[in-house]
Amino acid sequence: MIIERWVPLVGWLRRYNRELFSRDALAAVIVTLMLVPQALAYALLAGLPAEMGLYASMLPLVLYAIFGTSASLAVGPVAVAALMTASALSGFASPGSPEYIGAALVLASLSGIILIAMGVLRLGFLVNFLSHPVISGFITASGILIAVSQLKHILGVEASGHNVIDLLVALMSQWQQVNMTTLLIGLGVWGFLLVCRKRLNTWLTAIGISASTAGLVVKAAPISAVVVTTLLAWGLNFEKRGVDLVGAVPSGLPAIALPSLNSSLWFGLLPAALLISLVGFVESVSVAQTLAAKRRQRIDPNKELIALGMANVGAGVSGGSPVSGGFSRSVVNFEAGSATPLAGAFTAFGIMLSTLILTDLLAFLPTATLAATIIVAVGTLIDLPAVKRTWQYSRSDGVAMATTLMLTLIHSVEVGIISGVALSLGLYLYRTSQPHSAVVGRVPGTEHFRNVKRHQVITDDSLAILRIDESLYFANARYLEDTVMALAARAPTLKHIVLTCQAVNLIDASALESLEAINARLKDAGAELHLAEVKGPVMDRLKHTHFCQELTGKVFFTTFDAWQALAQPNELIAPSLPIKV
Amino acid sequence: MIIERWVPLVGWLRRYNRELFSRDALAAVIVTLMLVPQALAYALLAGLPAEMGLYASMLPLVLYAIFGTSASLAVGPVAVAALMTASALSGFASPGSPEYIGAALVLASLSGIILIAMGVLRLGFLVNFLSHPVISGFITASGILIAVSQLKHILGVEASGHNVIDLLVALMSQWQQVNMTTLLIGLGVWGFLLVCRKRLNTWLTAIGISASTAGLVVKAAPISAVVVTTLLAWGLNFEKRGVDLVGAVPSGLPAIALPSLNSSLWFGLLPAALLISLVGFVESVSVAQTLAAKRRQRIDPNKELIALGMANVGAGVSGGSPVSGGFSRSVVNFEAGSATPLAGAFTAFGIMLSTLILTDLLAFLPTATLAATIIVAVGTLIDLPAVKRTWQYSRSDGVAMATTLMLTLIHSVEVGIISGVALSLGLYLYRTSQPHSAVVGRVPGTEHFRNVKRHQVITDDSLAILRIDESLYFANARYLEDTVMALAARAPTLKHIVLTCQAVNLIDASALESLEAINARLKDAGAELHLAEVKGPVMDRLKHTHFCQELTGKVFFTTFDAWQALAQPNELIAPSLPIKV
Repeated sequence: MIIERWVPLVGWLRRYNRELFSRDALAAVIVTLMLVPQALAYALLAGLPAEMGLYASMLPLVLYAIFGTSASLAVGPVAVAALMTASALSGFASPGSPEYIGAALVLASLSGIILIAMGVLRLGFLVNFLSHPVISGFITASGILIAVSQLKHILGVEASGHNVIDLLVALMSQWQQVNMTTLLIGLGVWGFLLVCRKRLNTWLTAIGISASTAGLVVKAAPISAVVVTTLLAWGLNFEKRGVDLVGAVPSGLPAIALPSLNSSLWFGLLPAALLISLVGFVESVSVAQTLAAKRRQRIDPNKELIALGMANVGAGVSGGSPVSGGFSRSVVNFEAGSATPLAGAFTAFGIMLSTLILTDLLAFLPTATLAATIIVAVGTLIDLPAVKRTWQYSRSDGVAMATTLMLTLIHSVEVGIISGVALSLGLYLYRTSQPHSAVVGRVPGTEHFRNVKRHQVITDDSLAILRIDESLYFANARYLEDTVMALAARAPTLKHIVLTCQAVNLIDASALESLEAINARLKDAGAELHLAEVKGPVMDRLKHTHFCQELTGKVFFTTFDAWQALAQPNELIAPSLPIKV
Repeated sequence: MIIERWVPLVGWLRRYNRELFSRDALAAVIVTLMLVPQALAYALLAGLPAEMGLYASMLPLVLYAIFGTSASLAVGPVAVAALMTASALSGFASPGSPEYIGAALVLASLSGIILIAMGVLRLGFLVNFLSHPVISGFITASGILIAVSQLKHILGVEASGHNVIDLLVALMSQWQQVNMTTLLIGLGVWGFLLVCRKRLNTWLTAIGISASTAGLVVKAAPISAVVVTTLLAWGLNFEKRGVDLVGAVPSGLPAIALPSLNSSLWFGLLPAALLISLVGFVESVSVAQTLAAKRRQRIDPNKELIALGMANVGAGVSGGSPVSGGFSRSVVNFEAGSATPLAGAFTAFGIMLSTLILTDLLAFLPTATLAATIIVAVGTLIDLPAVKRTWQYSRSDGVAMATTLMLTLIHSVEVGIISGVALSLGLYLYRTSQPHSAVVGRVPGTEHFRNVKRHQVITDDSLAILRIDESLYFANARYLEDTVMALAARAPTLKHIVLTCQAVNLIDASALESLEAINARLKDAGAELHLAEVKGPVMDRLKHTHFCQELTGKVFFTTFDAWQALAQPNELIAPSLPIKV
């Protein structure tokens, strides 16, 4: 039982059968076809040798199959993690150098350890502080940044930088060095992939090919581009024309080895590893939950943390780059019918076979082909209209999203996401520090009370019922004092002020002191303070305080009880009253 | 009019008359008697020459009188600001050196500019994020730290450090160097001041002296200790016995001069200046508001920011240390009947006269006398039982308070207060990320709905009314999904789930996406999602969203409306039900 708790595989493997196997195997074949070019491309994006993308697609997938709870999540190298890896490592070594590769292995291991620790300590809730708009802005910016960073491979020039401005400046300074053969390959593959994605499915079904076969052909488009351009490069001797090729890839499987134990490197990479872990986890859990819900399954976020952590540790000890759950591959995996996490292990087997067969050929693969693959793939990440939609619904969400997006583009991924999180928390705190409040009156013929400015309600000159629409805590304690005292000052006929607390989920020590001050000041002014609709947990705490002993008025169960006890109501009056808050 | 808005003096000076003058003048005499020894003592505490405390009690008080809105706030050197000044400057120069003094002037000017900028930009709300428990823990720790830091003057030894541990270790290593004459003076003054504070008032009134005269005599105790020990030091030639004396003080008034314009110094002192500004402002506004409320007056926090800022800039250009509103002096000022801010200007005049008369005598004042004055004065700041009281009311407030207190004591003032603020914000965010929620039922015979676990209510098997006690935002969006889906999973008979939103003050973009997901999943499960009691501002936003078009159920005005439309109620049942959240 305890083993099953930590190793979900043990639980469901008992019920594994031939039908589940054939579904998993089919999904694995399709995902393998997608993953080979992506693994190579994302290694390139991270500034790592091509084989590290393949290595990241073997052991990590097997480990995820053992510890994971999602039947659909396709783990492996992903674009955003590759971008963040490149950004994180740029401060430690030059891309492609042995130190750079060593640092990448440390980064993967460290991300893995962080994820496992978060899972064991049940810290999964931390990702809740990455809001949807921040993540969405970050992903869109990452997509743009990745696409721009790949233009150099399409153009056949050198250009580096970690934001869009640096990259574009570097590209423009190189425009005279553009390699025309490279450009032709790049644009050719780009166009081919775009046409496949937008039209091929329709064409194939039009000529009578079944939808599932057509889907499979479309998904195999990138790998066919890889095969065709590799053969062209070999046959036409592109290397002589200055076309950048992937070059010699070590044949065979990765060796298992501990990463460097240089402590200053581990400490230096800690912040980047934390960000990669959090972003990777949020994305993986989102896609896994979405897909699980479609089949009425549930995934366990804390187990997912451990499984993704194991996968990253696996990458770190088997020569792979950091891994995460990929969005598009997971959807394909799901649609292809994957039934258990074993589909991922079968994919790992497929990648292993491909590696053994392909390594000699890969030497001739043009990097422009991979760059075009990346650009087309990240197109699905970019969602600029979302900024406008979010802004229309909520100004603060829109601002947080736009800030994350802009800073990621023009500064760096780290600054972009950290600023976004800080801004969204700051805006939330600011908003709760100046809560909405309303003087309410009785809706005629009911026991219900609503804002005097919005509804036709009955009121009473000697009684003000104030609804504060926020928990009372230190950030708004002073605001509460100001609001109540301003209300008392503007309506000298007031004898009773009722604070109706249906929206008050908490009264902290600072707010309690403010309530004591309000009670004392109203007493001096000859008015009584009452409370109504105080929630159970809030009342439990208030009961034993000095405030409750000193309270000049009463605590009523409902607002209506307070009304019946205290009001001599005026006639029904229209919205807009002398008492305003 | 515009002048009056920025210079409150212009407004009330027209109504100034002889009666107000005599009240202000009397208050000024009493405050001057208190302020002379405090000004000297706090300069000593800040590691500055004695005259800087006196200079900080002249121009700044005049400027506050022009720009301030509190009739009672007594501005000048205060203990906590002096402690923070010493801590801030320790990184820049050795105490007492010309660089140290120059840095103190920069610190005062910088605090002033920050306060003025906050006032002009209306950023006064920022201080709301310093919660009562954090401030209270910080002030108690500062009191302890100040008292411990003064022990060296009582013992006549050298010892430095910016936390209690360093100070105590340094003191213990010096125990053999203790100067017995210094110790006698220190303990003598300490004992004398304690007796005066605790008993003198009772004794004097017992022998028939009027309460107001007795109060005045008690307040003059520190200055009489200064006079007596100065005369003793002069007559008995204490200097020969190794007693540390204040030494030569320049006679006359301060010169007006711009502080150093070294930009690296200004940038280096910025964080410390910000903390001193915020803490000083919070303390000043708290005491000013408390005293103003007693006379049914109001103060304007944004004008106070500008006035305190002007006072600090005044200190910076006239050779004074940073200033703030002092708690005990303000209370004395209030009780002595100060009627307008001019009482402060008159106090400045009193300090000026004292400076002109006293400078020759001050050379003989033992620092042990000042140290004893400080220790007795900060005794009123220390409130350790508050930690227990706060903890009993609220665990998180107690933790924030204890953390601030401990870190200030054992690390430093900066780390203490910053950790306290970060922790209190973090705990608040954590709490809102896991909101309380309750399934509610109808209280029999009313339109009121309460928690099924706490109250005897009527429920219905096909209908669950869920009250979420928090605004719905990114940090709890996922939690909301989990709560609703768990409710749906445990009660398969459910046909309707009503979210009653009386406590929901905000639905942000992340929560909106979660609501869309909940609606879609419940639809798949054959249940409808309804909303009730959605507040005006929240509904205004929801109206135009995709969510509202897709919503399977309705938006009801009240929970009771939803109940009437959807329920086939069971009989009244006792608390504790199968449906639990």
